[in-house]
Amino acid sequence: MKVDLAAKHAALQEEWSPSIVAELNDMHVKVVKLLGEFVWHHHDDEDELFLVTKGRLRIQFRDRENVMLGPGELVVVPRGVEHCPLAEEETHVVIIEPKTTVNTGSTGGERTREAEWL
Amino acid sequence: MKVDLAAKHAALQEEWSPSIVAELNDMHVKVVKLLGEFVWHHHDDEDELFLVTKGRLRIQFRDRENVMLGPGELVVVPRGVEHCPLAEEETHVVIIEPKTTVNTGSTGGERTREAEWL
Repeated sequence: MKVDLAAKHAALQEEWSPSIVAELNDMHVKVVKLLGEFVWHHHDDEDELFLVTKGRLRIQFRDRENVMLGPGELVVVPRGVEHCPLAEEETHVVIIEPKTTVNTGSTGGERTREAEWL
Repeated sequence: MKVDLAAKHAALQEEWSPSIVAELNDMHVKVVKLLGEFVWHHHDDEDELFLVTKGRLRIQFRDRENVMLGPGELVVVPRGVEHCPLAEEETHVVIIEPKTTVNTGSTGGERTREAEWL
């Protein structure tokens, strides 16, 4: 029932492939490890929370200042806001978002992953 | 836009009084510091996530094994499940739950607090 985030991050195989570790209401809690740059995208109907537990995550925006997150820092990206995560070192992130959320949002393409339970 | 959880916890005045630091979809992200034992309660319609960032939190249950959370560990208490948090040292916790959630749930009483933005 308890989720140890560091242990879940250690069990992840592939970067940029979120895995589900908990659910509450209509949301999933996911862990993901990131390295490099993702793709620009937005989510039409879902706000998305990013919490860093290790490393550093830059979330790039087109319509506002970029945000740099370190361990213990979070940001919510509102629906409709285009963004692109960038990690210059291996970074461990917790994502909380509606179950309907696709990682590449409206952009789709080869970086799309269907999240599975870990 | 960025939320530094440790800074928010440091700004909290009263124990057992959650403050809102972010919102996403129909949920609030709250910070709270805990010391001692709360009241037994449940939430009829809301699942509730507890994530510890400092200290140790025991969540006591009537119908299942208690859970002990340390930093970086989380648990989701499903709706309807009676529980009672207990912290033997000052403990910093992030709570994620629907905006409708009252801290004392179905029990109410003098420990009830209305969460405000911090």
